[in-house]
Amino acid sequence: MPLDFRIETTSGKARAGRLITPHAEIETPVFMPVGTLASVKAIPQDTLEELGAQIILGNTYHLYLRPGVETVRRMGGLHGFMSWRRAILTDSGGFQVFSLNELRKVNEEGVTFRSHLDGSSHFFSPESAMEAQIGLGADIIMAFDECTEYPADRERIRSSMELTARWAARSKKHFEEHKHEVPWVTGAGKNHVGTAAVGCAGERQLAGAAELRSAGQPGAAVPTQSEQTQSLFGIVQGGMDRELRRESAERTIEIGFPGYAIGGLSVGEPRELTREIVESTLEHLPADKPRYLMGVGTPEEIVEYANLGVDMMDCVLPTRAARHGLLFTSEGKVSIKQARYAQDPNPLDPNCGCQVCQRYSRAYLRHLYASNEVLAQILNTIHNLSFYLDTMRRVRHSIRLGEECGFLTSVWSRPKP
Amino acid sequence: MPLDFRIETTSGKARAGRLITPHAEIETPVFMPVGTLASVKAIPQDTLEELGAQIILGNTYHLYLRPGVETVRRMGGLHGFMSWRRAILTDSGGFQVFSLNELRKVNEEGVTFRSHLDGSSHFFSPESAMEAQIGLGADIIMAFDECTEYPADRERIRSSMELTARWAARSKKHFEEHKHEVPWVTGAGKNHVGTAAVGCAGERQLAGAAELRSAGQPGAAVPTQSEQTQSLFGIVQGGMDRELRRESAERTIEIGFPGYAIGGLSVGEPRELTREIVESTLEHLPADKPRYLMGVGTPEEIVEYANLGVDMMDCVLPTRAARHGLLFTSEGKVSIKQARYAQDPNPLDPNCGCQVCQRYSRAYLRHLYASNEVLAQILNTIHNLSFYLDTMRRVRHSIRLGEECGFLTSVWSRPKP
Repeated sequence: MPLDFRIETTSGKARAGRLITPHAEIETPVFMPVGTLASVKAIPQDTLEELGAQIILGNTYHLYLRPGVETVRRMGGLHGFMSWRRAILTDSGGFQVFSLNELRKVNEEGVTFRSHLDGSSHFFSPESAMEAQIGLGADIIMAFDECTEYPADRERIRSSMELTARWAARSKKHFEEHKHEVPWVTGAGKNHVGTAAVGCAGERQLAGAAELRSAGQPGAAVPTQSEQTQSLFGIVQGGMDRELRRESAERTIEIGFPGYAIGGLSVGEPRELTREIVESTLEHLPADKPRYLMGVGTPEEIVEYANLGVDMMDCVLPTRAARHGLLFTSEGKVSIKQARYAQDPNPLDPNCGCQVCQRYSRAYLRHLYASNEVLAQILNTIHNLSFYLDTMRRVRHSIRLGEECGFLTSVWSRPKP
Repeated sequence: MPLDFRIETTSGKARAGRLITPHAEIETPVFMPVGTLASVKAIPQDTLEELGAQIILGNTYHLYLRPGVETVRRMGGLHGFMSWRRAILTDSGGFQVFSLNELRKVNEEGVTFRSHLDGSSHFFSPESAMEAQIGLGADIIMAFDECTEYPADRERIRSSMELTARWAARSKKHFEEHKHEVPWVTGAGKNHVGTAAVGCAGERQLAGAAELRSAGQPGAAVPTQSEQTQSLFGIVQGGMDRELRRESAERTIEIGFPGYAIGGLSVGEPRELTREIVESTLEHLPADKPRYLMGVGTPEEIVEYANLGVDMMDCVLPTRAARHGLLFTSEGKVSIKQARYAQDPNPLDPNCGCQVCQRYSRAYLRHLYASNEVLAQILNTIHNLSFYLDTMRRVRHSIRLGEECGFLTSVWSRPKP
């Protein structure tokens, strides 16, 4: 079985459990840092391990353009290529292509788009998106969908949702026929290039993971012969229409996937509407399968969605904001570029145990940012990711204690003094 | 005593020993990574510690402009400000101001120059350069000198060398009168701001250093009441004229310093000439004092100069080259941006034990560089610094074994196949 999902505790609508993939055992609800181009921007993989990230996200569209799927496949997939021994999830490229706006053209077959890098023309279909994601070899991959624009009228939302449903069926069909081609399958002659290609780094990586498993340490699982496949998740669309969301959920469940995502949100709609759609869509998803809300959110929002029963989330916010000097703390947001911090000897967040708050002052972080030092991006990213991952740790703890996870809402809904 | 220098072994002209400063015990010959703006570009302080750096360099000119000496002083000096518990050396700003070319004007009193950041006008004298360096609080600070341009005629070299000698005397006088003002002196009421300002980070830092010392671990020494001062080194100038170099050495020694630097090299002269001047100047420096060759060099050169009897060196080359994708390996230079590495599964340097060579492939490093990922700068810097620090470790080992340190020359003088 490529994916095992166990709900261990519930509290209200919130669920705490475990998601076991070929490369890692993940405690849920989980926040997944985004590693667009096979790197969570500005931090090395060992730092990400120290932060406790068990699963990260890669973007198929970007990796397809650079370095190309074939290069990654030959290095043993993303795991071998970037030397990340824990779990990975890739998106299908659908949302990224949707973001290209003027540069794309959709028909029944798929999407023609132009590269944002050099304007070259490319085509993604459900089949080619599966092929790319199998080559990248993430533990969890996503069906190819159309992200409906906002606002859109009911007819447009319906036809887009129906296209996504047809593409979901084609995605599943192609995946089932080709899933044995994942580059980290062992034993098959075809993939000895992939295995050999990771060279000494790859051997050490696998050896390391095996040691972790035999030591009984959580968070590292090595694929065995029987569990050597990826898992394909379906995506529910349906715009901001609750009825079409229900229909999309039903049609996606009918096709049948080991996990379900809610897509097409955070596309410009008001936040209250996002929450309503998430809440109503969750009612139509099976309770025993992982539920992934794509592309959210602020620290306050990820707590809120976990309370609603979401199990997985991802967002570029912590990493992107960090590079712009916007830091999340237990006392609210801090814009570290401000002159008020120039002589502030205090740690960024007095309640944070991350290596940045343990070692450096606000004055130093402000200096690094103002001087355009690369270290500013590194330290800010470490802190923000640590804050997000700690937040989810506290959410899981609250669920296990049977509490409402409201600890952030009080700070974050207050305007900063 | 603020500085203790012990030569433990010699081999030919080369010397292996220990330099004990208030914040660290440093094995020599030593290469000092450059941390211009209170950061060795692209790597966090804990990584620098893991690499085994015992002393780093800061640039007074840059720190004077950003964040300003007063800010650093209030945070306990550079050690507290950047949370670096080992040794630091600062230059005097003389060389940096020299590099401004059109923007500077020299007279007997000092140098008027314009900031490269905003064109604002500033003035450095021997006295103000000492004041700045005392405020920054490095373990070792440098006399304010004039770096003679190349080429220059004998008369110009002589007058410049004599100016440097007069400035050296003024530097020493001001330093002796004000050295008790270093921000990390304990016990004096005046500096409680500096001590308090580092806050919890500072306390942890000092506690950490104390633990290291009590555990008998090398490389960490905590200043005690009796050794709470900086050391001021003199700088020998004299252009490319061996006779004027000798005279400069004699005059500098007559003023008297606990260590001597050779400045004014690597200013555009041919490398063979650099070597000649270094070799002849070293003959005139006292054998029992540390000898610091400023601003060199390639891996091959640092080995060569150590063989000549140099004890300390610094250079931006490993860190700057790293950010441009130029990597130093036991097999020669690698320009990682080249397409030939796009599918290369091997580690960057098969003979290197650094965390980059242990974990990542050339293909991945090439991808990161080609995709302009911040992680490229981080990993490349870690490797290059590791290569430099390992090179010096091997030099020290060779000296202790009584061998000529020629291990790099054979690879590095051969053109790359």
